[in-house]
Amino acid sequence: PFIFSHAKRTNPDKPCKHFTVYYHTVIFNGTNTANATAAVVREPTKFWNTSFGQMVIFDSPLTKDQSLLSTPIGRAQGLYFYDMKMRVGSWFAYSLLFNSTEHKGIINIMGANLMHEETRDLSIVGGTGDFFMARGIVTLRTEDVDIPRYFRLQMDVKLYECY
Amino acid sequence: PFIFSHAKRTNPDKPCKHFTVYYHTVIFNGTNTANATAAVVREPTKFWNTSFGQMVIFDSPLTKDQSLLSTPIGRAQGLYFYDMKMRVGSWFAYSLLFNSTEHKGIINIMGANLMHEETRDLSIVGGTGDFFMARGIVTLRTEDVDIPRYFRLQMDVKLYECY
Amino acid sequence: PFIFSHAKRTNPDKPCKHFTVYYHTVIFNGTNTANATAAVVREPTKFWNTSFGQMVIFDSPLTKDQSLLSTPIGRAQGLYFYDMKMRVGSWFAYSLLFNSTEHKGIINIMGANLMHEETRDLSIVGGTGDFFMARGIVTLRTEDVDIPRYFRLQMDVKLYECY
Repeated sequence: PFIFSHAKRTNPDKPCKHFTVYYHTVIFNGTNTANATAAVVREPTKFWNTSFGQMVIFDSPLTKDQSLLSTPIGRAQGLYFYDMKMRVGSWFAYSLLFNSTEHKGIINIMGANLMHEETRDLSIVGGTGDFFMARGIVTLRTEDVDIPRYFRLQMDVKLYECY
Repeated sequence: PFIFSHAKRTNPDKPCKHFTVYYHTVIFNGTNTANATAAVVREPTKFWNTSFGQMVIFDSPLTKDQSLLSTPIGRAQGLYFYDMKMRVGSWFAYSLLFNSTEHKGIINIMGANLMHEETRDLSIVGGTGDFFMARGIVTLRTEDVDIPRYFRLQMDVKLYECY
Repeated sequence: PFIFSHAKRTNPDKPCKHFTVYYHTVIFNGTNTANATAAVVREPTKFWNTSFGQMVIFDSPLTKDQSLLSTPIGRAQGLYFYDMKMRVGSWFAYSLLFNSTEHKGIINIMGANLMHEETRDLSIVGGTGDFFMARGIVTLRTEDVDIPRYFRLQMDVKLYECY
């Protein structure tokens, strides 16, 4: 019988898999049907002036470089909502879906996107295909923002448990 | 001190626990209060014709065989929303709750339900009771669908980390 | 090569990290802007009389003792929604955010809050900072409830995988 140890050692600088993608969201404004990648499903509440309560569902392209016009290498699909009272911040639950020669599989992610911090770490809680049972961290960095029209996030994917 | 290895080997064909349940959802239509197991909380947006943006909250029975009328062995409770632009697909976050002689405990799940694929793998991210701290994959297969009235999914539960 | 074993042994009574916080939610009623910590983003559906379908987004203080007026030691940010038909129960997805001398980092949580049970176990699916890659259980206990105005939950945080 194998006795499981609570204490694990992992060097945050040495993930077992590491790559970067760029996430582009263009919000639907009623007319940009062809280009839009996301739609507001709940307008902000009147609670506070930080977009509190706004919910957005997205099906957004992932690219290898920073250009929205590059060929997508995957998609990010899921939900975010604004949930901070005193600052502007959101909370994400979504999947990264890949079906290319480089990556085939899905990475599932959730966590807080504290927009006042330069980088934010969310949890990779599982995956399928090339990412079967993976765990790790995805680090978000806002690169370009023209709210409410468009924003781009760098997503740095670091897996610390690979199978 | 125990040095944790990044690289784990697990045979996807040999889960440490494996069973199948059937999930039945009957959408509330305003009058079927007794039979309904789910309600739309957000109608689709006008963004696209793939139900994009529709959100559904459910409290749906789980059965051991395919009949909606069988005695439930548990319940699935949570949320899904349609989040695909070019195809019809949804994203789930939910729990499987069991309280029978066979299983006692909860399994927590999230991930993408790509409805154009015959089977879809979602992540089991944790659990309680018999499923304490479990991780694994649940594979969904649509078996019967009469949207918007009713659909049935086979859910094949495979745990790869058991405690 | 390291052969991973499926079977892990962990004593639920011996977490590698353990502490308790108190979560306070004051629902926005249209006028209590200064004190409110949460807002309803979806009213209950007409499906059933158990608040089914109501969704709430929160940015709620965490305290070390039971007083709402104590200095917060962190915040809980995320979403819950009522998803039980025959009883009143909700489903949570949220983060605990700490930035004090005691704790720095984030814990990500999801799971069912079966309000008819005295205590409910949700899954800790990941974390950052002091809680890098953590997994565990958070046990909720309702301590004070004056719905729809205010409720307080004890959140007992138990990590079983620490890095």
